[in-house]
Amino acid sequence: MKEYTPEYLEHITGVIDNRDEDTARTELSKLHPADIAELYRDLDLEQAEFLFRLLDADQAADVLMELDEDDRHKLLSAMSSEDIAKQVIDHLDTDDAVDIIQELDEEDRDEILSHIDDVEQAGDIIDLLKYDEDTAGGLMGTEMIVVNENWSMPQCVQEMRKQAEDLDDIYYVYVVDNDYRLRGVFPLKKMITHPSVSKIKHVMELDPVSVKTDTPVDELTLDFEKYDLVAMPVVDSIGRLVGQITVDDVMDEAREQSERDYQLASGLSGDIESNDTMFHQTKARLPWLLIGMLGGIGNSLILGHFESGFALNPAMALFIPLIGGTGGNVGIQSSAIIVQGLANGSLDIKSSTKQLFKELGVGLLNACIISLLVLVYNIFALGPAQVTTVAVSLSLFAVVVFASIFGTFVPLTLERFKIDPALATGPFISITNDIIGMVIYMSISSALIAAFGTSI
Amino acid sequence: MKEYTPEYLEHITGVIDNRDEDTARTELSKLHPADIAELYRDLDLEQAEFLFRLLDADQAADVLMELDEDDRHKLLSAMSSEDIAKQVIDHLDTDDAVDIIQELDEEDRDEILSHIDDVEQAGDIIDLLKYDEDTAGGLMGTEMIVVNENWSMPQCVQEMRKQAEDLDDIYYVYVVDNDYRLRGVFPLKKMITHPSVSKIKHVMELDPVSVKTDTPVDELTLDFEKYDLVAMPVVDSIGRLVGQITVDDVMDEAREQSERDYQLASGLSGDIESNDTMFHQTKARLPWLLIGMLGGIGNSLILGHFESGFALNPAMALFIPLIGGTGGNVGIQSSAIIVQGLANGSLDIKSSTKQLFKELGVGLLNACIISLLVLVYNIFALGPAQVTTVAVSLSLFAVVVFASIFGTFVPLTLERFKIDPALATGPFISITNDIIGMVIYMSISSALIAAFGTSI
Repeated sequence: MKEYTPEYLEHITGVIDNRDEDTARTELSKLHPADIAELYRDLDLEQAEFLFRLLDADQAADVLMELDEDDRHKLLSAMSSEDIAKQVIDHLDTDDAVDIIQELDEEDRDEILSHIDDVEQAGDIIDLLKYDEDTAGGLMGTEMIVVNENWSMPQCVQEMRKQAEDLDDIYYVYVVDNDYRLRGVFPLKKMITHPSVSKIKHVMELDPVSVKTDTPVDELTLDFEKYDLVAMPVVDSIGRLVGQITVDDVMDEAREQSERDYQLASGLSGDIESNDTMFHQTKARLPWLLIGMLGGIGNSLILGHFESGFALNPAMALFIPLIGGTGGNVGIQSSAIIVQGLANGSLDIKSSTKQLFKELGVGLLNACIISLLVLVYNIFALGPAQVTTVAVSLSLFAVVVFASIFGTFVPLTLERFKIDPALATGPFISITNDIIGMVIYMSISSALIAAFGTSI
Repeated sequence: MKEYTPEYLEHITGVIDNRDEDTARTELSKLHPADIAELYRDLDLEQAEFLFRLLDADQAADVLMELDEDDRHKLLSAMSSEDIAKQVIDHLDTDDAVDIIQELDEEDRDEILSHIDDVEQAGDIIDLLKYDEDTAGGLMGTEMIVVNENWSMPQCVQEMRKQAEDLDDIYYVYVVDNDYRLRGVFPLKKMITHPSVSKIKHVMELDPVSVKTDTPVDELTLDFEKYDLVAMPVVDSIGRLVGQITVDDVMDEAREQSERDYQLASGLSGDIESNDTMFHQTKARLPWLLIGMLGGIGNSLILGHFESGFALNPAMALFIPLIGGTGGNVGIQSSAIIVQGLANGSLDIKSSTKQLFKELGVGLLNACIISLLVLVYNIFALGPAQVTTVAVSLSLFAVVVFASIFGTFVPLTLERFKIDPALATGPFISITNDIIGMVIYMSISSALIAAFGTSI
């Protein structure tokens, strides 16, 4: 992250406040679009708009792409549909253009599309808008270099030169047959090592890793990592080349995915950042807190059935946090292992049963260790003949085993029903296990007291 | 992830068990090294070794790199130091070679290095071994294409061709001055668009984004994401080019970092996967469970001081899970927001005070909402004049505010002292807040009962 010194910020805001366009342009020309976007964070909207108007169209489009969605929305809403089409969309790659258009209101979309000069680009955008955001089709762009397998090398080079004009970066050249089906890939490196060969089909690499348009994004992310790719071709259901996904978009998706999992495990709903406003943060945090509150009230009702027990044997109350907390901790661990295994591809949903049995083993082992340690402690703290001593360790054992299995079973089941398993982590698991822990603890205690009284 | 059908696995194990080397070689030649590595998961060690011996050296080295550390260790420990040097290390890029050598015992390292035929590569590896694993120096490789800024284009192309022979992928050509200081970068794309120009310095891009050898890996990961890079040059303290980092390694690091944060937030210590053995899993899970157990016992001691209170006013016990759980949930949210903000670069440690004040605001808002809702509930459930009704809502208010501040303050403080802030998430925060919540609840209840008795 670029660190702007207070002196630099003072200098820039001074330039802006003086409306010194020349100096501002010089300063902007020294900055990467991503750095200009970061500078915007430290400016107010009016200052940002002043700088934005000084950027040339290519730069402005790149800066827009780098902004947070909220900031982008503010700048765009000050522009007419025609300006958005001609000054922004026309200067973006199709995948970025689609991302921006998807953020706009339905009625604005068609108007903007109608103002795009390049009909081919507009057509590509309309095609791309049809794909689900979470699939390869939703992530791909149509900018790439494509040559025919029957062309000679000089023919290909000429064609590459023509196509390369409009592209920012090129890593592979895709080779297709006469029906536009993907046949191979020609890494740019071979331009150096195999400069002149009769036909490209003799130097291209066959069977390149590719994805279908409907491949889920999390699957193709794993493929990028596994095969160490910088770009991947996307084909339709009959193998025709329709687009390309680049590694920078995949990295962004991977970070978003892991942030979403982390947030769900931490009881945060919605996309939230440390620099969001107080009200935005409260909104993202309150739902799970309220569910936790209802869980706590539910627990008070369960414990209420046992209220006379606390009067009779108040020592029972002391171990409520131990049992609830341990159940929560165990369940969170189990669910996290499953969610992570599904996310990084190391766990196959088909091996669920095996996983549940292993978890049963881990649960039994942990349960033995913890309940024995607490038993030893309580023999000294409360005495061996106390019903509480026995009830606490028996309950801990049952809670740890139950929470292990439950924390494994729930995310696996959600995955089976195509629901995001990360929903079953964090507060959901800890609240549920807390309640079930209390039911177990109270049932065992009641049974023991009914059988033996408070001393055994 | 490649899915091997049971039929395919049966076919392969049949081929292996028949020692049918020709068929096995044909099958292996159809697979990507990463896919062969995945196939190994479904084989036993003897079967894997059989296939491994049939691979040519380049393939074998690549497969080794794709294996889990444990599996790699098993295959390597069956090889002599000389074989490791000549059949593995000699065929790997320096960054991968260093990763493998770092996994070996200290005494094996020197022996292996002494067997490497290519003295230049051995020297590079020895240099790379000096860098800290978590810095750019520890992640970079020395394989790259470097040309002098004063060379003509044809000279450069000739040199590129020579250097490119040994490289897998090339994305940029780095341009240095006579002292080997990084001057610019020449994207391979320009080989197409600017095929013949007098000198490379006229077409290269100036001031490329670069990092120093001691830049932390998490910082350069953010730079890759921000500037959409596929490779980044690494320079020493006086700007001389010493290596290159590629995006595939950065993606692996980013995933490892986010998995580590996720595991810490979920109370898992050590690197753990769903397919690890039962004992390995128990070892990674037990530490936090034992800390949680000690926390629970600590809570029982705190509540023990109030044991007579439970006998007198057993309704107090019913709300222990509500107050402990809410404190834990709030604290986990607060710490997660900080850890995530620090990890993705959106939060600057310098704005700690501002962040704490905002968190105070969020905490107060949440505290008002939750304690009021519970107050209304308890007025109906217990009655307005009950001391429990008042004590629970007052305690909830205090606990939510405290947990918000504490969950923000601790990770920020750890970051300030260069300790991983992710340590202060998950179970640490929930256990601490649980204990502090009990202290607050018991103090407030005792004070109220002392002042008013059990009914106000």
